[in-house]
Amino acid sequence: MGIDSIHQTAIKAFVFDVFGTVVDWRSGVAREAQPFLQRHAPNLDASDFADAWRREYSPAMEEVRSGRRAYVRLDVLHRENLVKVLARFGIANVPEPEIDELNLAWHRLDPWPDAVDALRRLKARFIIAPLSNGNIRLMVDIAKRAGLPWDAILGAEVVRAYKPSPLVYSETAEILGIAPRELCLVAAHNNDLAAARRVGLRTAFVVRPTEHGPRQTSDLKADEAWDFIVDDLHELATQLGCAR
Amino acid sequence: MGIDSIHQTAIKAFVFDVFGTVVDWRSGVAREAQPFLQRHAPNLDASDFADAWRREYSPAMEEVRSGRRAYVRLDVLHRENLVKVLARFGIANVPEPEIDELNLAWHRLDPWPDAVDALRRLKARFIIAPLSNGNIRLMVDIAKRAGLPWDAILGAEVVRAYKPSPLVYSETAEILGIAPRELCLVAAHNNDLAAARRVGLRTAFVVRPTEHGPRQTSDLKADEAWDFIVDDLHELATQLGCAR
Repeated sequence: MGIDSIHQTAIKAFVFDVFGTVVDWRSGVAREAQPFLQRHAPNLDASDFADAWRREYSPAMEEVRSGRRAYVRLDVLHRENLVKVLARFGIANVPEPEIDELNLAWHRLDPWPDAVDALRRLKARFIIAPLSNGNIRLMVDIAKRAGLPWDAILGAEVVRAYKPSPLVYSETAEILGIAPRELCLVAAHNNDLAAARRVGLRTAFVVRPTEHGPRQTSDLKADEAWDFIVDDLHELATQLGCAR
Repeated sequence: MGIDSIHQTAIKAFVFDVFGTVVDWRSGVAREAQPFLQRHAPNLDASDFADAWRREYSPAMEEVRSGRRAYVRLDVLHRENLVKVLARFGIANVPEPEIDELNLAWHRLDPWPDAVDALRRLKARFIIAPLSNGNIRLMVDIAKRAGLPWDAILGAEVVRAYKPSPLVYSETAEILGIAPRELCLVAAHNNDLAAARRVGLRTAFVVRPTEHGPRQTSDLKADEAWDFIVDDLHELATQLGCAR
Protein backbone atom coordinates (compact mmCIF):
# COMPACT_ATOMS: atom_id res chain seq x y z
CA MET A 1 0.00 0.00 0.00
CA GLY A 2 1.24 3.47 -0.81
CA ILE A 3 1.20 5.86 2.11
CA ASP A 4 0.19 9.46 1.85
CA SER A 5 2.74 11.09 4.13
CA ILE A 6 0.36 13.93 4.97
CA HIS A 7 -2.09 11.36 6.25
CA GLN A 8 0.55 9.52 8.18
CA THR A 9 1.89 12.49 10.09
CA ALA A 10 -1.58 13.58 11.14
CA ILE A 11 -2.46 10.36 12.98
CA LYS A 12 -2.13 10.74 16.75
CA ALA A 13 -3.72 7.53 17.98
CA PHE A 14 -4.50 4.02 16.78
CA VAL A 15 -7.47 2.15 18.20
CA PHE A 16 -8.00 -1.54 17.59
CA ASP A 17 -10.81 -3.95 17.15
CA VAL A 18 -9.82 -6.84 19.40
CA PHE A 19 -11.83 -10.04 18.77
CA GLY A 20 -10.37 -11.41 15.54
CA THR A 21 -8.04 -8.46 14.93
CA VAL A 22 -5.71 -8.64 17.95
CA VAL A 23 -6.72 -11.95 19.53
CA ASP A 24 -7.78 -15.34 18.14
CA TRP A 25 -11.17 -15.76 19.84
CA ARG A 26 -12.18 -18.99 18.05
CA SER A 27 -9.21 -21.13 19.12
CA GLY A 28 -9.25 -19.60 22.57
CA VAL A 29 -12.91 -20.17 23.29
CA ALA A 30 -12.66 -23.71 21.90
CA ARG A 31 -9.67 -24.45 24.14
CA GLU A 32 -11.35 -22.99 27.22
CA ALA A 33 -14.62 -24.85 26.50
CA GLN A 34 -12.92 -28.21 25.96
CA PRO A 35 -12.94 -29.49 29.58
CA PHE A 36 -16.54 -28.32 30.00
CA LEU A 37 -17.64 -30.09 26.83
CA GLN A 38 -15.76 -33.26 27.84
CA ARG A 39 -18.03 -33.39 30.89
CA HIS A 40 -21.32 -32.29 29.35
CA ALA A 41 -21.26 -32.99 25.61
CA PRO A 42 -18.27 -35.13 24.66
CA ASN A 43 -19.38 -35.53 21.03
CA LEU A 44 -19.65 -31.80 20.39
CA ASP A 45 -16.73 -30.20 18.50
CA ALA A 46 -15.30 -27.35 20.56
CA SER A 47 -14.79 -25.10 17.50
CA ASP A 48 -18.40 -25.64 16.45
CA PHE A 49 -19.40 -24.69 19.98
CA ALA A 50 -17.27 -21.51 19.78
CA ASP A 51 -18.84 -20.63 16.42
CA ALA A 52 -22.35 -21.17 17.75
CA TRP A 53 -21.65 -18.96 20.78
CA ARG A 54 -20.17 -16.25 18.59
CA ARG A 55 -23.16 -16.31 16.22
CA GLU A 56 -25.28 -14.90 19.05
CA TYR A 57 -22.89 -11.95 19.49
CA SER A 58 -24.14 -9.53 16.87
CA PRO A 59 -27.90 -10.15 17.37
CA ALA A 60 -27.50 -9.59 21.13
CA MET A 61 -25.72 -6.27 20.58
CA GLU A 62 -28.31 -5.27 18.00
CA GLU A 63 -30.89 -5.11 20.79
CA VAL A 64 -28.79 -2.37 22.39
CA ARG A 65 -27.85 -0.64 19.12
CA SER A 66 -31.51 -0.46 18.08
CA GLY A 67 -32.48 1.16 21.38
CA ARG A 68 -34.76 -1.74 22.36
CA ARG A 69 -32.51 -2.42 25.34
CA ALA A 70 -30.39 -0.19 27.58
CA TYR A 71 -26.61 -0.70 27.39
CA VAL A 72 -25.35 -3.72 29.29
CA ARG A 73 -21.76 -4.83 29.11
CA LEU A 74 -20.60 -7.65 26.86
CA ASP A 75 -19.90 -10.03 29.77
CA VAL A 76 -23.65 -9.96 30.44
CA LEU A 77 -24.56 -10.57 26.79
CA HIS A 78 -21.97 -13.36 26.51
CA ARG A 79 -23.51 -15.12 29.48
CA GLU A 80 -27.06 -14.82 28.16
CA ASN A 81 -25.87 -16.10 24.80
CA LEU A 82 -24.10 -19.00 26.47
CA VAL A 83 -27.30 -20.06 28.23
CA LYS A 84 -29.12 -19.99 24.86
CA VAL A 85 -26.43 -22.02 23.13
CA LEU A 86 -26.27 -24.63 25.90
CA ALA A 87 -30.05 -25.12 25.59
CA ARG A 88 -29.79 -25.42 21.83
CA PHE A 89 -27.19 -28.19 22.16
CA GLY A 90 -29.36 -29.91 24.77
CA ILE A 91 -26.82 -29.34 27.55
CA ALA A 92 -28.93 -29.10 30.71
CA ASN A 93 -28.57 -28.97 34.48
CA VAL A 94 -25.27 -27.10 34.47
CA PRO A 95 -24.59 -25.45 37.85
CA GLU A 96 -24.54 -21.64 37.70
CA PRO A 97 -20.92 -21.32 38.88
CA GLU A 98 -19.85 -23.57 36.02
CA ILE A 99 -21.64 -21.29 33.55
CA ASP A 100 -19.99 -18.24 35.16
CA GLU A 101 -16.62 -19.91 34.83
CA LEU A 102 -17.11 -20.88 31.18
CA ASN A 103 -18.19 -17.31 30.42
CA LEU A 104 -14.66 -16.24 31.39
CA ALA A 105 -13.34 -18.08 28.31
CA TRP A 106 -13.45 -14.72 26.51
CA HIS A 107 -11.10 -13.25 29.15
CA ARG A 108 -8.41 -15.80 28.26
CA LEU A 109 -7.80 -15.38 24.56
CA ASP A 110 -4.36 -15.52 22.99
CA PRO A 111 -3.09 -12.71 20.77
CA TRP A 112 -2.16 -13.40 17.14
CA PRO A 113 1.62 -13.99 17.04
CA ASP A 114 2.49 -10.51 15.71
CA ALA A 115 0.26 -8.52 18.08
CA VAL A 116 2.28 -7.90 21.25
CA ASP A 117 5.56 -6.91 19.59
CA ALA A 118 3.92 -4.81 16.91
CA LEU A 119 1.81 -2.97 19.48
CA ARG A 120 4.99 -2.14 21.41
CA ARG A 121 6.46 -0.61 18.25
CA LEU A 122 3.32 1.45 17.62
CA LYS A 123 3.10 2.52 21.27
CA ALA A 124 6.48 4.23 21.06
CA ARG A 125 5.04 6.75 18.59
CA PHE A 126 1.27 6.76 19.05
CA ILE A 127 -1.43 6.39 21.67
CA ILE A 128 -2.78 2.84 21.33
CA ALA A 129 -6.00 1.48 22.82
CA PRO A 130 -8.58 -1.18 22.14
CA LEU A 131 -11.84 0.00 20.56
CA SER A 132 -13.71 -3.20 21.17
CA ASN A 133 -17.27 -4.11 21.98
CA GLY A 134 -15.78 -6.01 24.91
CA ASN A 135 -16.19 -4.38 28.30
CA ILE A 136 -13.36 -2.83 30.29
CA ARG A 137 -12.69 -5.74 32.65
CA LEU A 138 -12.74 -8.20 29.74
CA MET A 139 -10.16 -6.09 27.89
CA VAL A 140 -8.02 -5.71 31.03
CA ASP A 141 -7.96 -9.46 31.65
CA ILE A 142 -7.00 -10.26 28.06
CA ALA A 143 -4.30 -7.59 28.10
CA LYS A 144 -2.75 -8.63 31.42
CA ARG A 145 -2.67 -12.31 30.43
CA ALA A 146 -1.32 -11.65 26.94
CA GLY A 147 0.90 -8.65 27.68
CA LEU A 148 -0.90 -6.24 25.35
CA PRO A 149 0.66 -2.84 26.17
CA TRP A 150 -2.40 -0.58 25.81
CA ASP A 151 -2.20 3.07 26.90
CA ALA A 152 -5.88 3.03 27.89
CA ILE A 153 -8.95 0.85 27.58
CA LEU A 154 -11.43 2.59 25.30
CA GLY A 155 -14.44 1.15 23.49
CA ALA A 156 -18.07 0.22 24.03
CA GLU A 157 -18.25 0.50 27.81
CA VAL A 158 -16.61 3.93 27.96
CA VAL A 159 -19.20 5.37 25.57
CA ARG A 160 -22.02 2.95 26.52
CA ALA A 161 -22.82 1.95 22.96
CA TYR A 162 -21.81 -0.83 20.58
CA LYS A 163 -19.94 -0.66 17.29
CA PRO A 164 -20.77 -0.02 14.54
CA SER A 165 -22.91 2.77 16.04
CA PRO A 166 -21.25 5.96 14.75
CA LEU A 167 -20.94 7.57 18.16
CA VAL A 168 -18.57 4.83 19.37
CA TYR A 169 -15.97 6.11 16.92
CA SER A 170 -16.71 9.82 17.15
CA GLU A 171 -16.90 9.95 20.96
CA THR A 172 -13.65 8.04 21.20
CA ALA A 173 -11.92 10.75 19.15
CA GLU A 174 -13.57 13.36 21.37
CA ILE A 175 -12.31 11.60 24.53
CA LEU A 176 -8.80 11.53 23.06
CA GLY A 177 -9.06 15.25 22.35
CA ILE A 178 -8.33 14.79 18.65
CA ALA A 179 -10.14 15.19 15.35
CA PRO A 180 -11.61 12.02 13.78
CA ARG A 181 -8.99 12.22 11.00
CA GLU A 182 -6.23 12.06 13.63
CA LEU A 183 -7.57 8.70 14.82
CA CYS A 184 -7.09 5.43 12.93
CA LEU A 185 -9.13 2.28 13.51
CA VAL A 186 -7.31 -1.00 12.92
CA ALA A 187 -9.64 -3.91 12.21
CA ALA A 188 -9.88 -7.22 10.38
CA HIS A 189 -13.50 -6.46 9.48
CA ASN A 190 -14.55 -4.32 6.54
CA ASN A 191 -17.87 -3.32 8.12
CA ASP A 192 -16.15 -1.93 11.23
CA LEU A 193 -13.80 0.14 9.06
CA ALA A 194 -16.67 1.37 6.88
CA ALA A 195 -18.51 2.68 9.95
CA ALA A 196 -15.34 4.38 11.21
CA ARG A 197 -14.65 5.96 7.83
CA ARG A 198 -18.22 7.31 7.67
CA VAL A 199 -17.50 9.53 10.70
CA GLY A 200 -14.09 10.60 9.41
CA LEU A 201 -11.62 8.21 11.04
CA ARG A 202 -8.60 6.83 9.22
CA THR A 203 -8.72 3.10 8.57
CA ALA A 204 -6.28 0.17 8.58
CA PHE A 205 -7.33 -3.29 7.43
CA VAL A 206 -5.35 -6.26 8.69
CA VAL A 207 -6.13 -9.58 7.03
CA ARG A 208 -6.84 -12.37 9.54
CA PRO A 209 -7.68 -15.24 7.20
CA THR A 210 -8.22 -17.87 9.90
CA GLU A 211 -10.27 -15.89 12.43
CA HIS A 212 -13.23 -18.13 11.54
CA GLY A 213 -11.12 -21.23 11.02
CA PRO A 214 -9.62 -22.88 7.94
CA ARG A 215 -12.71 -22.42 5.74
CA GLN A 216 -13.20 -18.70 6.30
CA THR A 217 -14.94 -16.88 3.45
CA SER A 218 -15.46 -13.36 4.88
CA ASP A 219 -13.03 -10.44 5.17
CA LEU A 220 -10.32 -12.17 3.16
CA LYS A 221 -9.68 -8.92 1.32
CA ALA A 222 -10.24 -5.19 1.61
CA ASP A 223 -13.63 -4.09 0.27
CA GLU A 224 -12.57 -0.45 0.00
CA ALA A 225 -9.32 1.47 -0.46
CA TRP A 226 -8.57 1.70 3.26
CA ASP A 227 -5.72 4.02 4.31
CA PHE A 228 -3.61 0.98 5.18
CA ILE A 229 -4.04 -2.63 4.07
CA VAL A 230 -1.62 -5.02 5.76
CA ASP A 231 -1.01 -8.72 6.40
CA ASP A 232 -0.16 -8.20 10.07
CA LEU A 233 0.46 -5.46 12.60
CA HIS A 234 4.24 -5.47 12.06
CA GLU A 235 3.61 -4.46 8.47
CA LEU A 236 1.50 -1.55 9.74
CA ALA A 237 4.23 -0.48 12.19
CA THR A 238 6.85 -0.68 9.45
CA GLN A 239 4.75 1.37 7.01
CA LEU A 240 4.46 4.02 9.73
CA GLY A 241 8.21 4.09 10.21
CA CYS A 242 8.14 2.65 13.75
CA ALA A 243 11.46 1.23 14.91
CA ARG A 244 11.75 -2.55 15.36
CA MET B 1 0.66 -1.10 59.91
CA GLY B 2 -0.52 -4.57 60.74
CA ILE B 3 -2.13 -6.35 57.84
CA ASP B 4 -5.21 -8.47 58.15
CA SER B 5 -4.41 -11.30 55.78
CA ILE B 6 -8.08 -11.94 55.06
CA HIS B 7 -8.36 -8.35 53.88
CA GLN B 8 -5.23 -8.62 51.83
CA THR B 9 -6.23 -11.71 49.89
CA ALA B 10 -9.62 -10.27 49.01
CA ILE B 11 -8.27 -7.22 47.19
CA LYS B 12 -8.38 -7.66 43.40
CA ALA B 13 -7.57 -4.16 42.20
CA PHE B 14 -5.87 -0.99 43.38
CA VAL B 15 -6.99 2.37 42.04
CA PHE B 16 -5.01 5.55 42.63
CA ASP B 17 -5.61 9.18 43.13
CA VAL B 18 -3.06 10.79 40.80
CA PHE B 19 -2.52 14.54 41.48
CA GLY B 20 -0.44 14.60 44.64
CA THR B 21 -0.52 10.84 45.21
CA VAL B 22 1.28 9.53 42.11
CA VAL B 23 2.59 12.73 40.54
CA ASP B 24 4.00 15.98 41.91
CA TRP B 25 1.62 18.50 40.32
CA ARG B 26 2.98 21.60 42.09
CA SER B 27 6.59 21.36 40.91
CA GLY B 28 5.47 20.23 37.47
CA VAL B 29 3.01 23.04 36.87
CA ALA B 30 5.52 25.58 38.22
CA ARG B 31 8.22 24.25 35.88
CA GLU B 32 5.89 24.25 32.86
CA ALA B 33 4.60 27.76 33.66
CA GLN B 34 8.08 29.24 34.11
CA PRO B 35 8.78 30.26 30.48
CA PHE B 36 5.27 31.70 30.18
CA LEU B 37 5.66 33.73 33.37
CA GLN B 38 9.08 34.97 32.25
CA ARG B 39 7.34 36.56 29.28
CA HIS B 40 4.15 37.82 30.92
CA ALA B 41 4.77 38.28 34.67
CA PRO B 42 8.47 37.96 35.49
CA ASN B 43 7.97 38.94 39.15
CA LEU B 44 5.40 36.25 39.85
CA ASP B 45 6.66 33.15 41.66
CA ALA B 46 5.87 30.04 39.59
CA SER B 47 4.91 27.97 42.65
CA ASP B 48 2.51 30.68 43.80
CA PHE B 49 1.03 30.62 40.32
CA ALA B 50 0.63 26.82 40.49
CA ASP B 51 -1.04 27.11 43.91
CA ALA B 52 -3.43 29.80 42.68
CA TRP B 53 -4.39 27.70 39.64
CA ARG B 54 -4.92 24.63 41.84
CA ARG B 55 -7.11 26.58 44.28
CA GLU B 56 -9.72 26.89 41.53
CA TYR B 57 -9.79 23.10 41.05
CA SER B 58 -12.23 22.02 43.73
CA PRO B 59 -14.75 24.91 43.34
CA ALA B 60 -14.89 24.26 39.58
CA MET B 61 -15.64 20.55 40.09
CA GLU B 62 -18.20 21.42 42.76
CA GLU B 63 -20.34 23.01 40.05
CA VAL B 64 -20.57 19.57 38.42
CA ARG B 65 -20.85 17.60 41.68
CA SER B 66 -23.74 19.79 42.83
CA GLY B 67 -25.61 19.22 39.57
CA ARG B 68 -25.53 22.91 38.64
CA ARG B 69 -23.47 22.03 35.59
CA ALA B 70 -23.34 18.97 33.30
CA TYR B 71 -20.11 16.93 33.37
CA VAL B 72 -17.26 18.47 31.42
CA ARG B 73 -13.77 17.01 31.48
CA LEU B 74 -11.03 18.42 33.66
CA ASP B 75 -9.04 19.82 30.71
CA VAL B 76 -11.98 22.18 30.15
CA LEU B 77 -12.18 23.19 33.82
CA HIS B 78 -8.40 23.66 34.01
CA ARG B 79 -8.53 26.03 31.04
CA GLU B 80 -11.41 28.07 32.47
CA ASN B 81 -9.58 28.24 35.80
CA LEU B 82 -6.41 29.36 34.04
CA VAL B 83 -8.22 32.25 32.37
CA LYS B 84 -9.56 33.32 35.78
CA VAL B 85 -6.15 33.14 37.41
CA LEU B 86 -4.45 35.06 34.61
CA ALA B 87 -7.02 37.86 35.03
CA ARG B 88 -6.51 37.88 38.78
CA PHE B 89 -2.75 38.34 38.33
CA GLY B 90 -3.38 41.09 35.77
CA ILE B 91 -1.90 39.04 32.92
CA ALA B 92 -3.77 40.27 29.84
CA ASN B 93 -3.69 39.96 26.06
CA VAL B 94 -2.36 36.42 26.00
CA PRO B 95 -2.99 34.75 22.61
CA GLU B 96 -5.40 31.80 22.81
CA PRO B 97 -2.86 29.24 21.52
CA GLU B 98 -0.51 30.25 24.32
CA ILE B 99 -3.27 29.61 26.88
CA ASP B 100 -4.00 26.24 25.26
CA GLU B 101 -0.33 25.34 25.45
CA LEU B 102 0.02 26.37 29.11
CA ASN B 103 -3.08 24.33 29.94
CA LEU B 104 -1.09 21.24 28.87
CA ALA B 105 1.20 21.77 31.89
CA TRP B 106 -1.00 19.25 33.71
CA HIS B 107 -0.21 16.63 31.03
CA ARG B 108 3.52 16.85 31.80
CA LEU B 109 3.83 16.11 35.50
CA ASP B 110 6.58 13.98 36.96
CA PRO B 111 5.82 10.99 39.18
CA TRP B 112 7.08 10.87 42.76
CA PRO B 113 10.39 8.91 42.76
CA ASP B 114 8.85 5.67 44.09
CA ALA B 115 5.79 5.59 41.81
CA VAL B 116 6.85 3.85 38.59
CA ASP B 117 8.78 0.97 40.16
CA ALA B 118 6.24 0.37 42.91
CA LEU B 119 3.37 0.36 40.43
CA ARG B 120 5.20 -2.31 38.40
CA ARG B 121 5.45 -4.45 41.53
CA LEU B 122 1.75 -4.02 42.29
CA LYS B 123 0.78 -4.67 38.65
CA ALA B 124 2.28 -8.16 38.78
CA ARG B 125 -0.38 -9.20 41.31
CA PHE B 126 -3.29 -6.77 40.97
CA ILE B 127 -5.19 -4.72 38.44
CA ILE B 128 -3.95 -1.14 38.76
CA ALA B 129 -5.57 1.99 37.37
CA PRO B 130 -5.82 5.69 38.09
CA LEU B 131 -9.03 6.85 39.77
CA SER B 132 -8.43 10.52 39.19
CA ASN B 133 -10.59 13.50 38.48
CA GLY B 134 -8.32 14.03 35.49
CA ASN B 135 -9.79 13.08 32.12
CA ILE B 136 -8.65 10.10 30.07
CA ARG B 137 -6.35 11.93 27.65
CA LEU B 138 -4.73 13.82 30.55
CA MET B 139 -4.05 10.53 32.34
CA VAL B 140 -2.74 8.90 29.14
CA ASP B 141 -0.32 11.75 28.48
CA ILE B 142 1.03 11.71 32.03
CA ALA B 143 1.39 7.91 31.94
CA LYS B 144 3.15 7.77 28.55
CA ARG B 145 5.60 10.52 29.51
CA ALA B 146 6.33 9.11 32.97
CA GLY B 147 6.08 5.39 32.19
CA LEU B 148 3.23 4.67 34.60
CA PRO B 149 2.21 1.08 33.76
CA TRP B 150 -1.58 1.29 34.23
CA ASP B 151 -3.80 -1.63 33.19
CA ALA B 152 -6.63 0.78 32.29
CA ILE B 153 -7.56 4.43 32.68
CA LEU B 154 -10.52 4.66 35.04
CA GLY B 155 -11.83 7.68 36.93
CA ALA B 156 -14.05 10.71 36.50
CA GLU B 157 -14.47 10.68 32.72
CA VAL B 158 -15.43 6.99 32.56
CA VAL B 159 -18.28 7.51 35.03
CA ARG B 160 -18.89 11.20 34.14
CA ALA B 161 -18.77 12.43 37.73
CA TYR B 162 -16.15 13.90 40.04
CA LYS B 163 -14.72 12.54 43.29
CA PRO B 164 -15.68 12.54 46.07
CA SER B 165 -19.16 11.79 44.66
CA PRO B 166 -19.90 8.26 45.92
CA LEU B 167 -20.79 6.85 42.52
CA VAL B 168 -17.26 7.45 41.21
CA TYR B 169 -16.00 4.77 43.60
CA SER B 170 -18.97 2.40 43.44
CA GLU B 171 -19.30 2.47 39.64
CA THR B 172 -15.59 1.84 39.28
CA ALA B 173 -15.95 -1.36 41.31
CA GLU B 174 -18.94 -2.29 39.16
CA ILE B 175 -16.95 -1.70 35.95
CA LEU B 176 -14.17 -3.91 37.31
CA GLY B 177 -16.74 -6.61 38.06
CA ILE B 178 -15.76 -6.77 41.74
CA ALA B 179 -17.31 -5.95 45.09
CA PRO B 180 -16.37 -2.60 46.69
CA ARG B 181 -14.41 -4.46 49.39
CA GLU B 182 -12.26 -6.08 46.66
CA LEU B 183 -11.17 -2.62 45.49
CA CYS B 184 -8.65 -0.44 47.32
CA LEU B 185 -8.22 3.29 46.77
CA VAL B 186 -4.70 4.64 47.26
CA ALA B 187 -4.59 8.35 48.01
CA ALA B 188 -2.59 11.03 49.82
CA HIS B 189 -5.82 12.75 50.85
CA ASN B 190 -7.92 11.75 53.84
CA ASN B 191 -11.16 13.13 52.38
CA ASP B 192 -10.82 11.00 49.23
CA LEU B 193 -10.27 7.88 51.35
CA ALA B 194 -13.21 8.75 53.63
CA ALA B 195 -15.54 8.96 50.63
CA ALA B 196 -14.25 5.63 49.28
CA ARG B 197 -14.64 3.93 52.66
CA ARG B 198 -18.23 5.19 52.93
CA VAL B 199 -19.20 3.07 49.91
CA GLY B 200 -17.22 0.04 51.10
CA LEU B 201 -13.85 0.32 49.39
CA ARG B 202 -10.60 -0.60 51.11
CA THR B 203 -8.27 2.35 51.71
CA ALA B 204 -4.54 3.03 51.58
CA PHE B 205 -3.07 6.34 52.74
CA VAL B 206 0.31 7.36 51.40
CA VAL B 207 1.89 10.39 53.03
CA ARG B 208 3.06 13.00 50.52
CA PRO B 209 4.34 15.73 52.86
CA THR B 210 5.53 18.11 50.13
CA GLU B 211 2.62 17.95 47.70
CA HIS B 212 1.82 21.55 48.66
CA GLY B 213 5.44 22.59 49.07
CA PRO B 214 7.73 22.84 52.08
CA ARG B 215 5.16 24.45 54.39
CA GLN B 216 2.36 21.91 53.89
CA THR B 217 -0.05 21.58 56.81
CA SER B 218 -2.76 19.26 55.44
CA ASP B 219 -2.78 15.45 55.09
CA LEU B 220 0.47 15.02 57.02
CA LYS B 221 -1.07 12.10 58.87
CA ALA B 222 -3.89 9.59 58.64
CA ASP B 223 -7.18 10.90 60.09
CA GLU B 224 -8.69 7.42 60.35
CA ALA B 225 -7.42 3.88 60.73
CA TRP B 226 -7.11 3.25 57.00
CA ASP B 227 -6.43 -0.34 55.89
CA PHE B 228 -2.89 0.64 54.93
CA ILE B 229 -0.86 3.66 56.00
CA VAL B 230 2.48 3.98 54.22
CA ASP B 231 5.28 6.42 53.52
CA ASP B 232 5.50 5.51 49.85
CA LEU B 233 4.13 3.06 47.31
CA HIS B 234 7.06 0.63 47.74
CA GLU B 235 6.03 0.22 51.36
CA LEU B 236 2.51 -0.65 50.19
CA ALA B 237 3.84 -3.20 47.67
CA THR B 238 6.07 -4.75 50.32
CA GLN B 239 3.21 -5.00 52.84
CA LEU B 240 1.20 -6.81 50.16
CA GLY B 241 4.04 -9.25 49.55
CA CYS B 242 4.77 -8.08 46.02
CA ALA B 243 8.20 -9.11 44.73
CA ARG B 244 10.86 -6.43 44.26
